[in-house]
Amino acid sequence: MLSNTIMVSPKDRIRHFLKELVERGIDLALVSTPVNLRYLTDVRLETFERFGALLVCVGSGEVTLVVPKLDEGKALITGLPYLTYLDQEGPINAVKRAVSRCGSVRVVGFEGSAPIRYLWVLRDVLGEFRDETIDPVLAGMRIVKDEDELGSIKAAVRAIEEGLRATKETIKAGVTEAWLARMISNVIAEAGAVPRDVLVQSGPNSAIPHWLPGNRRIQQGDVIVIDITATYNDYYGDLTRTFVLGEPPIEFNRVYNLVKEAHDEAIKAVKAGVTGTFIDSVAREIISRSGYGEYFIHRTGHGIGLEVHEEPYISGDYNKPLPRGSVFTIEPGIYLPGKFGVRLESNVAIRLNGEVEVLDTYWPY
Amino acid sequence: MLSNTIMVSPKDRIRHFLKELVERGIDLALVSTPVNLRYLTDVRLETFERFGALLVCVGSGEVTLVVPKLDEGKALITGLPYLTYLDQEGPINAVKRAVSRCGSVRVVGFEGSAPIRYLWVLRDVLGEFRDETIDPVLAGMRIVKDEDELGSIKAAVRAIEEGLRATKETIKAGVTEAWLARMISNVIAEAGAVPRDVLVQSGPNSAIPHWLPGNRRIQQGDVIVIDITATYNDYYGDLTRTFVLGEPPIEFNRVYNLVKEAHDEAIKAVKAGVTGTFIDSVAREIISRSGYGEYFIHRTGHGIGLEVHEEPYISGDYNKPLPRGSVFTIEPGIYLPGKFGVRLESNVAIRLNGEVEVLDTYWPY
Repeated sequence: MLSNTIMVSPKDRIRHFLKELVERGIDLALVSTPVNLRYLTDVRLETFERFGALLVCVGSGEVTLVVPKLDEGKALITGLPYLTYLDQEGPINAVKRAVSRCGSVRVVGFEGSAPIRYLWVLRDVLGEFRDETIDPVLAGMRIVKDEDELGSIKAAVRAIEEGLRATKETIKAGVTEAWLARMISNVIAEAGAVPRDVLVQSGPNSAIPHWLPGNRRIQQGDVIVIDITATYNDYYGDLTRTFVLGEPPIEFNRVYNLVKEAHDEAIKAVKAGVTGTFIDSVAREIISRSGYGEYFIHRTGHGIGLEVHEEPYISGDYNKPLPRGSVFTIEPGIYLPGKFGVRLESNVAIRLNGEVEVLDTYWPY
Repeated sequence: MLSNTIMVSPKDRIRHFLKELVERGIDLALVSTPVNLRYLTDVRLETFERFGALLVCVGSGEVTLVVPKLDEGKALITGLPYLTYLDQEGPINAVKRAVSRCGSVRVVGFEGSAPIRYLWVLRDVLGEFRDETIDPVLAGMRIVKDEDELGSIKAAVRAIEEGLRATKETIKAGVTEAWLARMISNVIAEAGAVPRDVLVQSGPNSAIPHWLPGNRRIQQGDVIVIDITATYNDYYGDLTRTFVLGEPPIEFNRVYNLVKEAHDEAIKAVKAGVTGTFIDSVAREIISRSGYGEYFIHRTGHGIGLEVHEEPYISGDYNKPLPRGSVFTIEPGIYLPGKFGVRLESNVAIRLNGEVEVLDTYWPY
């Protein structure tokens, strides 16, 4: 149980977290998803197969990591108090010890994404309690990125742009979507980031959002939509570009320019304090008034950070103001079934000083 | 709501599942993890970000898939009754309709890996109920692989062996662990499977199980442990090989031969009806009596299938008999901190006719 190696930022985050839990009347919080553990402790723990959690006693302010013996090394570098358990004994005794100084526990806070079996472990230890969500607390903290977090997102974006440049340089008729996706992944890895989802959609596939890259061979005249996510230091970048190999099909330039206009105008509308709904409506209005509204079948954007989709959402139902520190995508699209699709996605930050910054600069078309 | 395109095997599986739920006194079961949905419906649905589940009313025997509108295409090909919902409305109304013909629901079965927010959705719909695990039911069904499932595992194993052969052919001093891992992933993808975790551990890193491949450059005389998982048709293969670049270090051949003996003898001990504990003890005894017991720091093996770790476990605490149809790894290892490690992992099937089959054949050392 070290305490001298603790870094400043996770300690501050845990203090802030405790304050919010007090206000919500939660007696004990269990944080177990890898992203929230990464956020609060600075260390990435895999907790899906074996029990691993940060237990936060709100009354006493005591926090304890409970991890499998295998992860003791990671627990150590968090600088937080921790308890370990062996596979053959299971986590119950360690959890019991961790909550023994919590006092009376009536309300336990869980993340909605935590596995139900974590709730069952707590019930074994505590008997009956009321379970409540702590998601809004963590989302509300994570939405505001500090300069380090923004720096990581920028590094991910730069690596993705390397992948896009390499695509433009190497693409030719005959290569498969899957080959291109692997090439892009390799370039991103060489650039020092971790490639995540790389979607390459060519020809009619470009009209199907989220179609996985397959064995279709790219042909002259194909529209190609490339949507790439990658992480750096666990933080996501997420860009999409659309271009054509050779001569564009009929209607393409009109649609491309319309999506680009929606993209550019939505970005111009970004500032701290406007709602996600408003930004979404700016992009949607431009596309709708040209008669393509029914082909813009998804939201305009989503926050990025430790998760590829997180708050804020740039969508019709996100009525909250975008805060300083938020980082998100702007990605309007038009999909003409059987013909082609166009999606253009940038990453935009509202800096802590209020300045709006577009993180990507490379355009292959 | 189609019913004419349903395939035989998922239908049989759902029928079997219903029978087991009746015996356990469960009124309603909610199946939501991608692996169990894949098992019961033959279709892979991603359910982590948006609500997606198979709702099984035990009394009436009615099953309904509830999925986001985006996944309607996948719901359709399951051939099962389904309901969809839009992002802006959320899943509550669809779930309400799906359970409306369930009668009175007092006990709801959940998978332990399902997100807690799924339980919250059901509570919104049903009010209070008792939650119970359905994990043993699904694990008990999935442990018995049919010939199709075994065929998929074999295809994954063959692709992994391609990756191992390519490693032996291309490895040379100076390449990094990470480069080698990417090369292996590409070979596996070209062979038609999906590369998953590829661990390359060289020199002293070989003594650290589960260390991620990094930028260490491989040198002459290095011991190299390569642990590869890949899927074919969603089913996992999982092999580990250890070899040396150039001259082996002191003690290496002695340790290698000991691990190989433990590996071979454990496999010889496999037959339907013996326990995981027994197989584990065979491998452990061989290593312990030569004085290396304290360096064999993990279980001898684990089941493979739709998950990379599933029942049966070849470990000291798995006292259940291994059934016909089970497929699992045998992977003893010895790790000498600061020196090197050796792990040798095969995949073994107990066929439905009782015959024991080792699925891998390639040995680089």
